[in-house]
Amino acid sequence: MVKIARWHAPATTETRTGPRVAHVHTGIVHKGRALSFEPDVTTLTLLEEGLAATLRRAAARIAAAAGDEPPVEQVRFLAPLEPRSMRDFVTFEEHVEGVTASIDGEAGVVDEWYEAPTFYFTNPHTVRADGETIPVPSGCHRMDFELEVAAVIGAPAHGDAPLGGTNLDPARAHEFIFGYTILNDWSARDVQSREMKVRLGPCKGKDFANTLGPWIVTADEFADRHDEEGFLHLALTAEVNGTALGTDDLGHMGWPFAELVAYASQDSRVLPGDVLGSGTSGRGCLAELWGRHNDLVPPPLAEGDRVRLTVEGIGSIENTVGARRREGVPSRPARRRGRSRAPETTSEG
Amino acid sequence: MVKIARWHAPATTETRTGPRVAHVHTGIVHKGRALSFEPDVTTLTLLEEGLAATLRRAAARIAAAAGDEPPVEQVRFLAPLEPRSMRDFVTFEEHVEGVTASIDGEAGVVDEWYEAPTFYFTNPHTVRADGETIPVPSGCHRMDFELEVAAVIGAPAHGDAPLGGTNLDPARAHEFIFGYTILNDWSARDVQSREMKVRLGPCKGKDFANTLGPWIVTADEFADRHDEEGFLHLALTAEVNGTALGTDDLGHMGWPFAELVAYASQDSRVLPGDVLGSGTSGRGCLAELWGRHNDLVPPPLAEGDRVRLTVEGIGSIENTVGARRREGVPSRPARRRGRSRAPETTSEG
Repeated sequence: MVKIARWHAPATTETRTGPRVAHVHTGIVHKGRALSFEPDVTTLTLLEEGLAATLRRAAARIAAAAGDEPPVEQVRFLAPLEPRSMRDFVTFEEHVEGVTASIDGEAGVVDEWYEAPTFYFTNPHTVRADGETIPVPSGCHRMDFELEVAAVIGAPAHGDAPLGGTNLDPARAHEFIFGYTILNDWSARDVQSREMKVRLGPCKGKDFANTLGPWIVTADEFADRHDEEGFLHLALTAEVNGTALGTDDLGHMGWPFAELVAYASQDSRVLPGDVLGSGTSGRGCLAELWGRHNDLVPPPLAEGDRVRLTVEGIGSIENTVGARRREGVPSRPARRRGRSRAPETTSEG
Repeated sequence: MVKIARWHAPATTETRTGPRVAHVHTGIVHKGRALSFEPDVTTLTLLEEGLAATLRRAAARIAAAAGDEPPVEQVRFLAPLEPRSMRDFVTFEEHVEGVTASIDGEAGVVDEWYEAPTFYFTNPHTVRADGETIPVPSGCHRMDFELEVAAVIGAPAHGDAPLGGTNLDPARAHEFIFGYTILNDWSARDVQSREMKVRLGPCKGKDFANTLGPWIVTADEFADRHDEEGFLHLALTAEVNGTALGTDDLGHMGWPFAELVAYASQDSRVLPGDVLGSGTSGRGCLAELWGRHNDLVPPPLAEGDRVRLTVEGIGSIENTVGARRREGVPSRPARRRGRSRAPETTSEG
């Protein structure tokens, strides 16, 4: 098992033109130190090489450690990858029950939820790191978080499936899972509620931030943690300002990760660098509790709130909520426009 | 104005181990010939340089043309870019009216549609080119197409906004539009209908194919085609097997493109390589007509059907529908699982 991370080195050098631009390091966290790979190695390099090659690369790096690598306390971790795409599933029945009541004002889970693991694509451009401040988006008055685990896709082996995985069965899909990281899918519930009435997305309710981190724990760590049905049992805990909302088990997903990857790949492609979120665990967000309480209790997140998500075997990520952006969104309502013309159905003669 | 395209050169060389692997060229289409840029130039290179630099580069390439560049009939065009992300909006009221009736069995456009230009992120990994065969995804019995125009994002100028655009107003957002291409957002309506009941996505109803092409026409071509409200008036026509469904005007979008880009950028980022679809025009798909007719007339697309989309000032793309994949999707329904634990609320004492 290795922890794949990205970080900025401590900014120790000042030049005459100001502080040196920090170089982004990709490497591993080992015995409390951050061990860099070669400067041209990115997380995508590792994902395209595959897990076995990465484990060999990590072992060689540990053997060559000089002992002067920076302690983790001295580096600033970035999100462990820049995803090529992000899919987010909704696999915890308990979450759907609570959020349906909160967003739609109606209880119950629709039959269609049970049929197949539904997901949506979300924004790969706004990934944030452990420790960053997450501002409330403009117009949002019901800011929330979501505790999830994300599977990170890699090649099964170097040069294997260079075009990614297509039409995978769950056993083969399992080989495409390189590792796991923690995902906080920040959510503007009032914005999301509007969008779900249009039945597309959500888009602006979700596209302002996703925290990934603090690192990717490679999949070999969890190889013996799956039950006979393929579910991975890890304890999940969300805390707001130090108070736990409760604890769930990642094994409570309605489908195991391998089935999510297999489903995503049908008539489509999953590629190294893709990230697939589990969906929010039970007691892994506020909206589920709002639905259950039929009231905004606990209150929506506000400036200064600290949200800490902990996943057994991976670690913790914590972010502080920032101020709401004051400027309004420069959006106007739709203008009434004209209509199309049907083709001529009679000849001119 | 230039047409930015990607193509495979004619495969003229055979080696002892088989046909040479075709190199992907990026360049421009000029007077019926395909003029390549330097081998290391990709569409993303141009988008990051910005429109003005690209126009200068194109002028230099035309000046240096040797006259022996391949005629367009001899090259196989690829999609003009590999998008960094794809957002698809829904901005034509007429389309929403028809499709709502078709998908949901209810007529009418919800009030929330008018409030802001809703979109969803879709799959950037399954972009197809003009001329390709598009198989029907497994399990789909209501295959459809969607006629759209897509705006392609570039940097306003070289080195400008390297992190992309954030919190843009429409005037500034307009500067991020590098050009336009035709988008066919292929749709599995029966799969999409299930997903919209879960109120996420759509995902598998849309993730199997998006055709982009045949090239990107740079935005300067359309600079004087916007009306005083910012709408771009271009004629849009969809044909199935040579029969037109009708003609719409791109100016019938409820919001102009600059407002879509501005909205996407709020509390988020738009980057060079991002693609934003207009949404489907009126009479630009079958489902709108199914809703209007309350019947599957014209019938869903089937193997061998040819779908041709034409946009004034850009060109046409045509694809043939392929066979439905026979293997079933290896998906199982959700398993009933356990529930989370609430935190201890009383002390042990």
